[in-house]
Amino acid sequence: MKHLSQQTVDAITALQHCHATCSSMAMTHCLEMGGEHARPQHLRLMLDCAAFCAFTADALGRKSQFHTGFAALCAEVCETCEKDCEALGDMDDCVQACRVCATACRQIARAEHREALETGSRTAPARH
Amino acid sequence: MKHLSQQTVDAITALQHCHATCSSMAMTHCLEMGGEHARPQHLRLMLDCAAFCAFTADALGRKSQFHTGFAALCAEVCETCEKDCEALGDMDDCVQACRVCATACRQIARAEHREALETGSRTAPARH
Amino acid sequence: MKHLSQQTVDAITALQHCHATCSSMAMTHCLEMGGEHARPQHLRLMLDCAAFCAFTADALGRKSQFHTGFAALCAEVCETCEKDCEALGDMDDCVQACRVCATACRQIARAEHREALETGSRTAPARH
Amino acid sequence: MKHLSQQTVDAITALQHCHATCSSMAMTHCLEMGGEHARPQHLRLMLDCAAFCAFTADALGRKSQFHTGFAALCAEVCETCEKDCEALGDMDDCVQACRVCATACRQIARAEHREALETGSRTAPARH
Repeated sequence: MKHLSQQTVDAITALQHCHATCSSMAMTHCLEMGGEHARPQHLRLMLDCAAFCAFTADALGRKSQFHTGFAALCAEVCETCEKDCEALGDMDDCVQACRVCATACRQIARAEHREALETGSRTAPARH
Repeated sequence: MKHLSQQTVDAITALQHCHATCSSMAMTHCLEMGGEHARPQHLRLMLDCAAFCAFTADALGRKSQFHTGFAALCAEVCETCEKDCEALGDMDDCVQACRVCATACRQIARAEHREALETGSRTAPARH
Repeated sequence: MKHLSQQTVDAITALQHCHATCSSMAMTHCLEMGGEHARPQHLRLMLDCAAFCAFTADALGRKSQFHTGFAALCAEVCETCEKDCEALGDMDDCVQACRVCATACRQIARAEHREALETGSRTAPARH
Repeated sequence: MKHLSQQTVDAITALQHCHATCSSMAMTHCLEMGGEHARPQHLRLMLDCAAFCAFTADALGRKSQFHTGFAALCAEVCETCEKDCEALGDMDDCVQACRVCATACRQIARAEHREALETGSRTAPARH
């Protein structure tokens, strides 16, 4: 995907990995373990995280004008899921995938911000 | 879906209608008209709106803990899409679907806020 | 959506309703009831049905060239889900939504077939 | 994802790559090039392929009972998209991603078949 920056491609990879890990773990590992792992609130959070990662990956891939807002909210969802999985235990793959993905999303959100600042300084009206 | 409030069911209906309208119009009407209707930025916005509406409908349906944040951001995307479609012309179905959906999303976001305030006042220990 | 036939619009409505019902029931009603309702195989089937209905609705909306094949397979998934929900009990909304959706999908698949036959007879070179 | 076979994990990776490539190329490269690349039928096929790959990846991840049927149909969609992209030209990433994905899907469909045969022979009634 030569039409996207390396940072965006890396974020899409992290988002897709987090999506696949959370959705698969929820519907196999967690449901099969039962107990706390099958708590409705935990599984809903896992699906929130999985679905929002898939959505954000697609949005980045199509150069969405909202990519900063999506990435920032996605980072928040991933971090919440990461903490929930860590507290639950036996969810190492999810904890790791969420962490990596949240970091990638934060970078996308910041990159945009930095770019906006730079653009701002480039176009600032010189006072003569 | 008796396990959901009427307001939530209504919002899901509006979100699904907006999703179907935007995704179908983008890939049939807009592409077939060509010209301004097939501008990359317009079609990306249509798909952003369609995909985020589908995601938010699912999140409401599973009683996501993030439903307020998702609904608020979804309202913003729908309003942006509504304006773009209105400026473009010949997009009445989308304009209408986005408007109804944005209103429903704003209500979900506000309802949560009101509920939080009420809960707050019920539990506030303010007797000095 | 004036650019689609009434039959297609009706099928999309049935597909979206089945999607919303199955995905929401799975992640609220079934998980909260627990027991047989939270069996991994049942929940996976519910999500299969929900996700394939959403996919097929979108495919019909964009006039996909594969719409017959998708509709036929979707009918099969819906019928399987309908039977599973009926056997389980306390799943009336899903049973009903799956039944209506399967019927709509079968009609889409047949309509295409009938159209192909008609087209065939119109264009068949009669060699006397 | 230790709960899945290596073959399934590899197929999910191929499906996700094909999804990301087709959906991103459609909404950036193809729309920006215009002309034949922005033909409605081509873009619809690209989105069919992208969406069905995403759906199938999720179905494999949750050990769907329909995974053979989904994988077989997905292979067909990918092969159709591959040919369309090859004929169009300037779509190398998509051609390659579709080809790898179709092969992985065919293997999933065959593996199931082989497994069924083996299971059949293991459980065949001994003739006394």
